[in-house]
Amino acid sequence: MFVLVNLKTYPCDPVEVAEAVRDVDRETEATLAVAPQAAHIERVAETGVETWAQHVDPIAHGSNTGGTLAETVADAGAVGTLINHSERRRRLADIDGAVRAADRADLETVVCANNPAQIGAAAALGPDRVAVEPPELIGTGTPVSTADPDIVAEAVSAAAGVDGEVSVLCGAGITDGEDVLAAADLGAEGVLLASGVAKADDPREALEALVEPL
Amino acid sequence: MFVLVNLKTYPCDPVEVAEAVRDVDRETEATLAVAPQAAHIERVAETGVETWAQHVDPIAHGSNTGGTLAETVADAGAVGTLINHSERRRRLADIDGAVRAADRADLETVVCANNPAQIGAAAALGPDRVAVEPPELIGTGTPVSTADPDIVAEAVSAAAGVDGEVSVLCGAGITDGEDVLAAADLGAEGVLLASGVAKADDPREALEALVEPL
Amino acid sequence: MFVLVNLKTYPCDPVEVAEAVRDVDRETEATLAVAPQAAHIERVAETGVETWAQHVDPIAHGSNTGGTLAETVADAGAVGTLINHSERRRRLADIDGAVRAADRADLETVVCANNPAQIGAAAALGPDRVAVEPPELIGTGTPVSTADPDIVAEAVSAAAGVDGEVSVLCGAGITDGEDVLAAADLGAEGVLLASGVAKADDPREALEALVEPL
Amino acid sequence: MFVLVNLKTYPCDPVEVAEAVRDVDRETEATLAVAPQAAHIERVAETGVETWAQHVDPIAHGSNTGGTLAETVADAGAVGTLINHSERRRRLADIDGAVRAADRADLETVVCANNPAQIGAAAALGPDRVAVEPPELIGTGTPVSTADPDIVAEAVSAAAGVDGEVSVLCGAGITDGEDVLAAADLGAEGVLLASGVAKADDPREALEALVEPL
Repeated sequence: MFVLVNLKTYPCDPVEVAEAVRDVDRETEATLAVAPQAAHIERVAETGVETWAQHVDPIAHGSNTGGTLAETVADAGAVGTLINHSERRRRLADIDGAVRAADRADLETVVCANNPAQIGAAAALGPDRVAVEPPELIGTGTPVSTADPDIVAEAVSAAAGVDGEVSVLCGAGITDGEDVLAAADLGAEGVLLASGVAKADDPREALEALVEPL
Repeated sequence: MFVLVNLKTYPCDPVEVAEAVRDVDRETEATLAVAPQAAHIERVAETGVETWAQHVDPIAHGSNTGGTLAETVADAGAVGTLINHSERRRRLADIDGAVRAADRADLETVVCANNPAQIGAAAALGPDRVAVEPPELIGTGTPVSTADPDIVAEAVSAAAGVDGEVSVLCGAGITDGEDVLAAADLGAEGVLLASGVAKADDPREALEALVEPL
Repeated sequence: MFVLVNLKTYPCDPVEVAEAVRDVDRETEATLAVAPQAAHIERVAETGVETWAQHVDPIAHGSNTGGTLAETVADAGAVGTLINHSERRRRLADIDGAVRAADRADLETVVCANNPAQIGAAAALGPDRVAVEPPELIGTGTPVSTADPDIVAEAVSAAAGVDGEVSVLCGAGITDGEDVLAAADLGAEGVLLASGVAKADDPREALEALVEPL
Repeated sequence: MFVLVNLKTYPCDPVEVAEAVRDVDRETEATLAVAPQAAHIERVAETGVETWAQHVDPIAHGSNTGGTLAETVADAGAVGTLINHSERRRRLADIDGAVRAADRADLETVVCANNPAQIGAAAALGPDRVAVEPPELIGTGTPVSTADPDIVAEAVSAAAGVDGEVSVLCGAGITDGEDVLAAADLGAEGVLLASGVAKADDPREALEALVEPL
């Protein structure tokens, strides 16, 4: 299982969470990674954790003031990037462009989407992974695998119908190891989570509880 | 073949073009339709021509000032709508929402996209048709079927790989009947065109030349 | 006072509301107008009511599929347009472009904004009027003139400080004549309203109650 | 004079340019600063140069995946931020929100705009400075102070008419010290530049030529 901890713009200490993610990754079979804000990628990557960007733009080197360039987040230490997170929905043409920009910079890609139809669409663009996150469950603590298991199974099926090489992550409401197991049972090969770790009093403890049943 | 004449915001007389489209439609096996601006849908539909909207928003009845509601363009006389034209690129989630809004209002849908990967993505959202329009050819008079025939064949293949019921139109640079035949030979079931008719000195003559070889 | 009834994408009969607005306009000193969706402008304008667009894009005749062209809404019968309504916030450069597009087509302009600072900014772009609508009050039935009278007075002052020729309207939560009088007392020269009329069981009665104290 | 070097997403070495900016700043009366990409802010700030962000979003700590938070760029070492650069035009409400976010994080602000009307609007939002950059001159090497001196003088006048405390920078096409002097003569208190330094074979030499006449 792949467990990606998205720090969003939460007021956590990104290095403290990164060190917890790094340490728990070493203790488990699962692969753990963390996605800080762009301006924190460098200090997070220096901890040795697997570091992801939260977003890249569909741009190349050039006149793009304020843009997030795939090559630059890679240079700062990222090895992958989220694209089209529900808090940063993009145009279809720009998701396509961002996947290609990430490929160019050797970044792995996870394209997020709301529902099985959009997961099929995302898979058609050739990312490494897609992630299904029903917007109404984000941040609720109610895991999608419990609240709406069919959506995960249908997302797995939709991705497989379009491109059998694209694996599916499951996001929204994941808080403990049972949620992760439930997602795996539905065919997901990983989870996206955020507040359950980044807002935990003890992020390390939260992560250990998460991977314990694996 | 389906021939959709997009009037964009050209300074043509929409009723004059609509009457030409209506009359040529009656003389040929092909199905011809016209897509005027929203504020002109009613007067265009009154000519009896098959009328399409250029865009609908992913919204329902409610507080959406300035939005283009599927039910309202249908009420004004439209029977279908373009979505995600290259001059009005939308977010993946909003293309999905617009297709569902159009379905709700019984509008046919054509989702436009730039390249075969995006055509596959568009097809995954369940529209009636998709249209491939390489942005670099729009308005050039160089038909995609000549400039880059592979893109049409690959788009047809990408759509079929995702959903065999979604037919493919071909846009950008179509000006005469040879272009339409070439598109058909590559597997397209119709064409989108704009300036070739809307900016013609004699739109009726341009349309007749277009459908003559069919 | 200027009273502009915004029909948004409500499921009302636009012609029925338009006729009520037209009739009440004839019975009162105030100027009443109605803003239907673009595809309804033509049939609304045919009632003889003063008709406004809900939005125009910062574009000219040309390749702008799905765009709302100032000249076209004018051709359909509109004499003015809202710009930057809180449900359709635009880029600063595009508000500027839309005001100039509306001027070019002889449409009057009302640029909406959230707060006094943005009202000052909007006034600097040279519209005919600006409208202050605190987003948190829209659709609440709590009039801004009661809930937050300072915001109206400060908006009037901000506009006057930038351009003394730009008058200020007041939106959000206006439902009866007392609200209109209160707005006038704070320096507003008109009101924007929507649900109070468009969702009323009897739009004519709602309008009459609104203008009765004037 | 304030000289801000915008590195955009150019393929330059940000630390090499930063060191040149820092060193030339120490040799001259002018204040020099550099604006790298967000993921490079930390390493640029470590050189001791005055470091600016290219953009911040109108957001606070919370669920904003992919957003650029003012507090985070400040934490990484930035002391100011551009807002609404012509390559990243924002909604009026979001420019307002970004200025307030930057204030909250003690970042200085420069709001960019295309023309004198928009400069007046930008000044009404209370930034520290505004910058006028006619889009058609960006990257041309033709300085706005030569190509269109009136636009600079009118921008200075528009800002002063709205808020006398907001100073005006001048961007687009600045390449040498004569351009900077010409801008100063027109009332500008600084310049924005990008390719003239970031793409120079020897950024230090380019900067020295720029500040030499001051």
